Amino acid sequence: MARINEHYRKLQAGYLFPEIGRRVRAFQAAHPDAKIIRLGIGDVTEPLAPAVTEAMHRAVNEMGTRAGFRGYPPDSGYDFLLEAIRVHDFAARGIEVGLDEIFVSDGAKQDSGNIQEIFGADCRIALCDPVYPVYLDSNVMAGRTGAAAADGRFAGVLYLPCTEANGFAAEPPNERADVVYLCSPNNPTGAVMSRALLERWVRWAQANDAVIVFDAAYEAYITDDSLPRSIYEIPGARSVAIEMRSFSKRAGFTGVRCAFTVIPKELMGTTASGPRVSLRDLWARRHTTKFNGVPYVTQRAAEAVYTPEGKKQTGEQVAFYLENARCLREGLGAAGFTVFGGVHAPYLWMRTPGGLSSWEFFDRLLTQAHIVGTPGSGFGPSGEGYFRLSAFNSRENVTEAIARIRKAFGQPE
Amino acid sequence: MARINEHYRKLQAGYLFPEIGRRVRAFQAAHPDAKIIRLGIGDVTEPLAPAVTEAMHRAVNEMGTRAGFRGYPPDSGYDFLLEAIRVHDFAARGIEVGLDEIFVSDGAKQDSGNIQEIFGADCRIALCDPVYPVYLDSNVMAGRTGAAAADGRFAGVLYLPCTEANGFAAEPPNERADVVYLCSPNNPTGAVMSRALLERWVRWAQANDAVIVFDAAYEAYITDDSLPRSIYEIPGARSVAIEMRSFSKRAGFTGVRCAFTVIPKELMGTTASGPRVSLRDLWARRHTTKFNGVPYVTQRAAEAVYTPEGKKQTGEQVAFYLENARCLREGLGAAGFTVFGGVHAPYLWMRTPGGLSSWEFFDRLLTQAHIVGTPGSGFGPSGEGYFRLSAFNSRENVTEAIARIRKAFGQPE
Repeated sequence: MARINEHYRKLQAGYLFPEIGRRVRAFQAAHPDAKIIRLGIGDVTEPLAPAVTEAMHRAVNEMGTRAGFRGYPPDSGYDFLLEAIRVHDFAARGIEVGLDEIFVSDGAKQDSGNIQEIFGADCRIALCDPVYPVYLDSNVMAGRTGAAAADGRFAGVLYLPCTEANGFAAEPPNERADVVYLCSPNNPTGAVMSRALLERWVRWAQANDAVIVFDAAYEAYITDDSLPRSIYEIPGARSVAIEMRSFSKRAGFTGVRCAFTVIPKELMGTTASGPRVSLRDLWARRHTTKFNGVPYVTQRAAEAVYTPEGKKQTGEQVAFYLENARCLREGLGAAGFTVFGGVHAPYLWMRTPGGLSSWEFFDRLLTQAHIVGTPGSGFGPSGEGYFRLSAFNSRENVTEAIARIRKAFGQPE
Repeated sequence: MARINEHYRKLQAGYLFPEIGRRVRAFQAAHPDAKIIRLGIGDVTEPLAPAVTEAMHRAVNEMGTRAGFRGYPPDSGYDFLLEAIRVHDFAARGIEVGLDEIFVSDGAKQDSGNIQEIFGADCRIALCDPVYPVYLDSNVMAGRTGAAAADGRFAGVLYLPCTEANGFAAEPPNERADVVYLCSPNNPTGAVMSRALLERWVRWAQANDAVIVFDAAYEAYITDDSLPRSIYEIPGARSVAIEMRSFSKRAGFTGVRCAFTVIPKELMGTTASGPRVSLRDLWARRHTTKFNGVPYVTQRAAEAVYTPEGKKQTGEQVAFYLENARCLREGLGAAGFTVFGGVHAPYLWMRTPGGLSSWEFFDRLLTQAHIVGTPGSGFGPSGEGYFRLSAFNSRENVTEAIARIRKAFGQPE
């Protein structure tokens, strides 16, 4: 009988969000009248911007005509979108990125899960703790870790605890790793990396010949323009860093699916026998072999995000979610909860009240307040005792959620 | 410095189709006035059916309203599409498939490239030769093969030659393999497997505890209703086979991106220590970790393919391409070329004239007739001396292509 990839069996439970979904469905089935407010999975709620839907209608019309029909998209994206990305996301901030260094895809989740494939099986991975689970799980599934210990940590991974003590911002370690995943603004903690910290990471990567996978999926939520939005704002980063971006949260594309990854030509890996190999070329090879491009209609939708109307409309969406975050932060803070994040990010990271574990608080919040959040421990051992709330919802639901949490938990001990 | 995945370096050249693209661009740049006719990459040319574009417009409108907006799609597809697939593709032919056995994705290329991930690194792979390159390349990249020999064959792979002698239909081998990839109607040869042959394959898989990955991306082109369209029409197949389907060629979705994979619950793999593990559950885990669902608009487009209007309109597209195939087959046959396929498939597989190698014929066809085809050797050593033509083009271009080929090559030697 065919042997399976046994590394999958090291993953202890289901992926975090399906597990949350199962618990919520079970509760809803038992309490069909409960009006559940979902602040769990970070999914947007505002409708697509008019500039975006208009572009999609135009593209659908083209696809319905012989002259306008487009078949297979270019593997790494249409030039019209690559150029819009280059100009607006990078050149506008003084960063030079070539069109052939940008790879459009159907999601930053996919890109951050797939990027590990181009690295050797013996690479040592460094991860923040707590962390977006995909970085870890994709490396576990590829066999780049040992088994999980009782505390949930996988052998062979270098964990970088992000705690209240360090402001949820990991400093570069005093040991080496080959690939480190960084996410700023951070999912799940909502923390943002300062320019000085990002500079220290680039220096560390240079000194250790390491590669930084920089997940900037939430850069649109940075409200202080002096903070770096791209790792390429740091001198020297082109030779050490891969950057990932997404339209999901900046333009409400979670149901549209578009993202991109940048790999500069200077970024190299090595082989056992010595030759240096372009990581960009390896990723291009993966793209052409296992991907078939993003739909034309979707790429026109993404292009529209960069038009003046698109920028204004999607900017208002982001501002709306950030105001939700402010309401949650201040409302829960005033009620005595200890809350982090939510300033340059759509996520709030709160200490669970009364010493509850993350899942205990999840269950209580669900059953007593009919609110869904995300247990911090689902993001790693250092997330235990914390809880993630997302700001993606209507203002009405956010206000209602604050009132329900205050009522159910009052002043925490 | 971070080590790369050195298995990538075993791949000798670029992926076949980008290499073709490079040669065509170079020729077009040198001959800007040449009117090139593309019968190379199998990309559709007819516009999307009205039933499909109407469904997409409706879905875009929904996404632009608060009530109709949809965020992250379900990982494996919306129930409305899963149910349409279940009813029309399977139940209508007497096949029972559960909704939780169907996984909607953004392409059969992706699915057939990713499926190997759930198998062990030591699994022995069996492939037809010639073969769709993704099956092989994805296994090479995963380290499941040795290096390539001078004849292009990779160590460790069991090759199943498909030649004129066996009608381009591989019989089950007299040795074992863990995973075998079969494609019917076949890309690139256009051959179709008979029910009796498919039965022998299912029996072989049962006897050898092997898994069949059955690529049915071209099933819509089967014109003889007594031929199997799904491997699950063969008794016992549920416990040995994975099936992949696509909307790309049946409904012109190459630029829309939608496909699906079926993995029955009975299908198991094994571990070194013995326990049997559901391959469906492993694929589900991969889907939730490294995929984020197909866009809502795309899934509504796919659903529309199953409406009465959608079936009629996309059926007319398929009939149009099949008529193109007939013209090519008969036109080139009458001119003395030896041509296979093109009856139950959009592909023709022709012997190169005058003993030319596949790439020699490619270059001559491009420079002398300004026609792009696909060198048979790009699909494997047994494809040397053959050439693939696709029927995806306008009738006018197909007629013109036949005339040009006859003029440039006359009667082959």
